[in-house]
Amino acid sequence: MRQIAPIGRASVGCGPLIQPLTDTARPLRQQIFERVRAAGQMARVQLAKELCISPASVTTITSELIDAGLLEAVETLREGEGGRGRPAVALRVRPNTRLVVGIKLSDREHTAVLVDFAGTMLAGEAIPRDPGPMALDAILDAAERLLDRVCTRAGVAREAVEAVGLGVPGFVDCDSGVVHWSPVLLHRHVALQAALRARLGRTVFVDNDANLVTLAELWFGAGRRLSDFAVVTIEHGVGMGFVINHRIYRGSRGMGMELGHTKVQLDGALCRCGQRGCLEAYVADYALVREAQTALNLPLGEMQSVGVMLESLFDHAKAGNAAARSIFRRAGRYLAVGLSNIVNLFDPELIILSGERMRYDYLYASETLAEMHAMMLDTGRDAPQIETHAWGDLLWAHGAAALALHELTEQLLGPSRELAAE
Amino acid sequence: MRQIAPIGRASVGCGPLIQPLTDTARPLRQQIFERVRAAGQMARVQLAKELCISPASVTTITSELIDAGLLEAVETLREGEGGRGRPAVALRVRPNTRLVVGIKLSDREHTAVLVDFAGTMLAGEAIPRDPGPMALDAILDAAERLLDRVCTRAGVAREAVEAVGLGVPGFVDCDSGVVHWSPVLLHRHVALQAALRARLGRTVFVDNDANLVTLAELWFGAGRRLSDFAVVTIEHGVGMGFVINHRIYRGSRGMGMELGHTKVQLDGALCRCGQRGCLEAYVADYALVREAQTALNLPLGEMQSVGVMLESLFDHAKAGNAAARSIFRRAGRYLAVGLSNIVNLFDPELIILSGERMRYDYLYASETLAEMHAMMLDTGRDAPQIETHAWGDLLWAHGAAALALHELTEQLLGPSRELAAE
Repeated sequence: MRQIAPIGRASVGCGPLIQPLTDTARPLRQQIFERVRAAGQMARVQLAKELCISPASVTTITSELIDAGLLEAVETLREGEGGRGRPAVALRVRPNTRLVVGIKLSDREHTAVLVDFAGTMLAGEAIPRDPGPMALDAILDAAERLLDRVCTRAGVAREAVEAVGLGVPGFVDCDSGVVHWSPVLLHRHVALQAALRARLGRTVFVDNDANLVTLAELWFGAGRRLSDFAVVTIEHGVGMGFVINHRIYRGSRGMGMELGHTKVQLDGALCRCGQRGCLEAYVADYALVREAQTALNLPLGEMQSVGVMLESLFDHAKAGNAAARSIFRRAGRYLAVGLSNIVNLFDPELIILSGERMRYDYLYASETLAEMHAMMLDTGRDAPQIETHAWGDLLWAHGAAALALHELTEQLLGPSRELAAE
Repeated sequence: MRQIAPIGRASVGCGPLIQPLTDTARPLRQQIFERVRAAGQMARVQLAKELCISPASVTTITSELIDAGLLEAVETLREGEGGRGRPAVALRVRPNTRLVVGIKLSDREHTAVLVDFAGTMLAGEAIPRDPGPMALDAILDAAERLLDRVCTRAGVAREAVEAVGLGVPGFVDCDSGVVHWSPVLLHRHVALQAALRARLGRTVFVDNDANLVTLAELWFGAGRRLSDFAVVTIEHGVGMGFVINHRIYRGSRGMGMELGHTKVQLDGALCRCGQRGCLEAYVADYALVREAQTALNLPLGEMQSVGVMLESLFDHAKAGNAAARSIFRRAGRYLAVGLSNIVNLFDPELIILSGERMRYDYLYASETLAEMHAMMLDTGRDAPQIETHAWGDLLWAHGAAALALHELTEQLLGPSRELAAE
């Protein structure tokens, strides 16, 4: 993997020809808060420069945000003067203002974290579970148990938690809070957000898991240095998140970025979603396991867990089993198709490959990357950076917490809302 | 084709959960100017509402824009009061401020239009040409001839033209003005913008032709009622443009949206770009013509023009020739793959299919649309609207003029620029 380049022009976005995108509805205080939050800390003069506004405006708005208890001033050392420089003042998010909890539901375990307003994790919990879809009530029970556990561990009351972010795999309309389909839910079109709000008595936000990883990267990872990047998650399914100009893009109705269900083969392999030829049906865990049965010559009907099957398949491939190798080889080639399609459509600065399977060689083998390059347009320029992040489930829960922080911030700082001191 | 729905929530963009995208670098005066330009005319109170800013701010900024000669006030009738209402005041772009020329180079003909600052066409010209790639000098000659012709026809001097927008098919880096590859150019990596600026003595902007059609839609078509839409162009190649929140998205380095070169088949049909399995290699004119030779049983080496071959193929298909039908049928199915991939990734409100070939039944046959629906995720919601616009080359040239207007506006209204009266 190559190292990431320094922040480029697109991060500054004042150039006349590459058109940055606009949202006319977002007030400056929101933009300022987000820049500070993303950077960890930032001096006022830097804010003025990055946002192309006057230092006087920055001073006015940041004073409002400090008065409202959302930002605070901290002393920092001036750049380039080593450890002996005079202290300068930077701004950062005031951490103790609000607490939120992030919960991630998945096939193997449910996880939760409790974080402060600056996103710092105060407690984390995980509950193992049996795979398979669950009824809504069981989901609500699990979420409530996790909420109470992280609160107990952090020594705070449930009432101190201002909001809960919940992530589930599948097709989530994050605007209405309805989960149209998820491998963890027995039913379709479930109003999960409303049900969980009623159960917990807390504000709840719901999103799909790929967006959670993307939010985690935006708040705590790549987003601290880049304005534009794509995240591709490969686990039980294949997901995607996309950040443009420091914001997640969700499509006009909140249902975009379903990379796993783009078609890479007409009338191709059968996908869990019921359609044929989806990228996921060649690359995701279940697609590998499906063929592993044949490659490993297992008796029909003999079931092993997905993890055991994948480990076994990987061992056989390393030991030279041609059928096992061809499964990884094909998955790698189709992954290259998916990645090159992202490059040819979105032209991102960086693609982050995220998920536990990232440790399987085939996914970041030089062959797959070479194939991706061969399928990108020949424009004479470098390919985008590719990084692999093999995060565990806690990262996903951290992303769910970022969702809650993000939505809270929107509500606090959005249009037509007055800033009130705590 | 269904009719387009009224402008939805996404156009207003103040909701908390569907995240609109932000550009912190764009001053309000630019946003105001663009809204007025897109709407044709708009009252100040409506501007304040759409931009979520105070009427006082709108008044201040629009006064600046009027003083600078960019906007003007016009009397209009109040809505809902029929023809007898009291006149109200709306704003519109002052048309006579500046003139620009748009030029579109293509395989069959070169076209040009001269428009005023509001985008109204004052003159148009077309020069037929022999197909095939041209040397840079020949391209510059053609552009100069077209510029002089539209100026003569409109009765203005070349010096009165403030800027020229130029569109070419292929891979264009619109930031550097370099054309990396184009079917109309003999060489790769040509600094076309710089060369044309030197030849014409005018400011020049260059972009690829799919973006031109998208700009034309944004300025003069769908963009007047929608904030988000996709445009797919099917002619000699397959192109795409994408508008988010009233702005064209070009990718982080200005080279995104190459839908025609996304891969829909691993190791598939050979594409003009040299790679295999590109959507274009199944759907574009050249792909149909390539198979037509076999279907029509033409002797190898017997060449006809693309237009004649396509007409003949279409006639045979209508007359029941099974091989000819299968060519259109397959192209339609792959087009459905490309469209469903756009829906699954971008989730647009509207997809506009644009290009001369749109009149061929297969492209908008109910079969193709049904297939697209079958390959979209089942979210329980309606599919995006699909419209077909069979524009001619003058529309593309109009888009090139919109490019010039857009870039001029950016320069006039962008950050750190003072507004000066004419």
